[in-house]
Amino acid sequence: MVGVDAPVDLSEALVILDPDRTDLLRELDRTFTAWGNAAGAREILPPPLYPVSDLEKFDVYNNFPHLALVAAPLDLAGGAVKPADGRFTPADLQAPRLGLPHATCYGAYLFHQDRRVADTALVTLVNRCFRNEEHYGGLRRLLSFQMREIVALGSYEHSRQVLTAFTERITAFGRALGLALDRVAASDPFFENDGGRALLAKLSPVKFEFQVEGLAISSVNTHRNFFGERCNIRRLDGDEYAYTSCVAFGLERWLSVLLDLHGGDAQQALESVKSAAGQVS
Amino acid sequence: MVGVDAPVDLSEALVILDPDRTDLLRELDRTFTAWGNAAGAREILPPPLYPVSDLEKFDVYNNFPHLALVAAPLDLAGGAVKPADGRFTPADLQAPRLGLPHATCYGAYLFHQDRRVADTALVTLVNRCFRNEEHYGGLRRLLSFQMREIVALGSYEHSRQVLTAFTERITAFGRALGLALDRVAASDPFFENDGGRALLAKLSPVKFEFQVEGLAISSVNTHRNFFGERCNIRRLDGDEYAYTSCVAFGLERWLSVLLDLHGGDAQQALESVKSAAGQVS
Repeated sequence: MVGVDAPVDLSEALVILDPDRTDLLRELDRTFTAWGNAAGAREILPPPLYPVSDLEKFDVYNNFPHLALVAAPLDLAGGAVKPADGRFTPADLQAPRLGLPHATCYGAYLFHQDRRVADTALVTLVNRCFRNEEHYGGLRRLLSFQMREIVALGSYEHSRQVLTAFTERITAFGRALGLALDRVAASDPFFENDGGRALLAKLSPVKFEFQVEGLAISSVNTHRNFFGERCNIRRLDGDEYAYTSCVAFGLERWLSVLLDLHGGDAQQALESVKSAAGQVS
Repeated sequence: MVGVDAPVDLSEALVILDPDRTDLLRELDRTFTAWGNAAGAREILPPPLYPVSDLEKFDVYNNFPHLALVAAPLDLAGGAVKPADGRFTPADLQAPRLGLPHATCYGAYLFHQDRRVADTALVTLVNRCFRNEEHYGGLRRLLSFQMREIVALGSYEHSRQVLTAFTERITAFGRALGLALDRVAASDPFFENDGGRALLAKLSPVKFEFQVEGLAISSVNTHRNFFGERCNIRRLDGDEYAYTSCVAFGLERWLSVLLDLHGGDAQQALESVKSAAGQVS
């Protein structure tokens, strides 16, 4: 932990993208969204924060407390409060009831909460995500970034099939772009405190990352019925909880590796994305 | 102020848009962005939170402290902290150094900070905005919503001309949609604590809102050189601070009034937007 006396440097934590980089990020997002649409997904639009009581359902404060950022209004009941040296004191705040999510797919589970889904449900969504890190590194490691996801809900077979199809598509897209993409099995701390699922995860990896020189830019994740159970999402036939899986694209990280590949030339990178997308879709 | 014993009801504070509403919001945003592009604006992409020290430059904690939301990581130095009844206590947090913006255009001024701009600079950007309110009302009054802006920087004449042109366009678009749009002069608390500018604002309104039955869905705002001065944005010729102005579109509020007009039918509303955009652009 970094204490109050040595606050984390925020200079690389947040960026405002210039027009060429904005165009490139938007083109990447359009490409991934089009893949989702072609597979049958429609888009839903989540907010960038949730009541803490919603995020609690996903054990985020048990499993990822170090990543968490929470938000609150100022407590003005005792008069004006002012920041000093760029910070408020905790006592300046009302009790925090809002949590900033560290992944996009929560919105998909909350959207379907207490509903039934078809065996082959598919949605796509993009959101701002937030992670409290010990150090930041610009586009490679931001405090706030955008993550596009394609989320499958329904049967177990569907949840697997979507990951298989997108694994192929991401691999082919990476090849067409000239990116050296490694597919790497990764652990998912979601299931660390869940005995049965933790055992299953050891037997069969639940998360694969697509990395460029060690930097994860996409992942495919299977959750069995964890989110279905937590949000009471059931399958149309019978009372079984829906199985879910998701495909995630860290948009600023894709931007970062493409800029590296093209010597920082965002316009050239944009042309390469258009060309590669035409080869893959 | 609502105290700790009666927390504000968050049930109408945040929404996840379904696919039809998402499509409608995206179409509205494409329409307004295209107007900006046609006027010469390129897009930049800001983060949904900033260091408090950046937002302080705009007097937000002096002028809008009641609207402000601030964010911080959990303080885990003393061990695990857990929410109870959906809330943390302020003492669970590290000192808040991050502020959630209540308007989009701050990103444009921070992007141009310490730079020089041409006399007719124009950018567009969309962001998540956040407002702490005493009550929420779904799409009409959300805690988090999206605001598209077109921001002019440069000469005073340019800052005025952009507002004149967009006032005409918004008026014509409202007419083509069949919306009963009222143009209403409004006060802008930005300048309340700034004697000279407050006096000027009384002489010549700095903000006009476009309202539907009292609900503001867009506004045009002129800031003279307030933001140019605060961010040290200067004009290319000479040392004068840049003048700025902005045109703002509250996307969920446009969604709300269009859904009302079309009996809740988002697909029909989408067709009306496409048709009206064709008449105006």
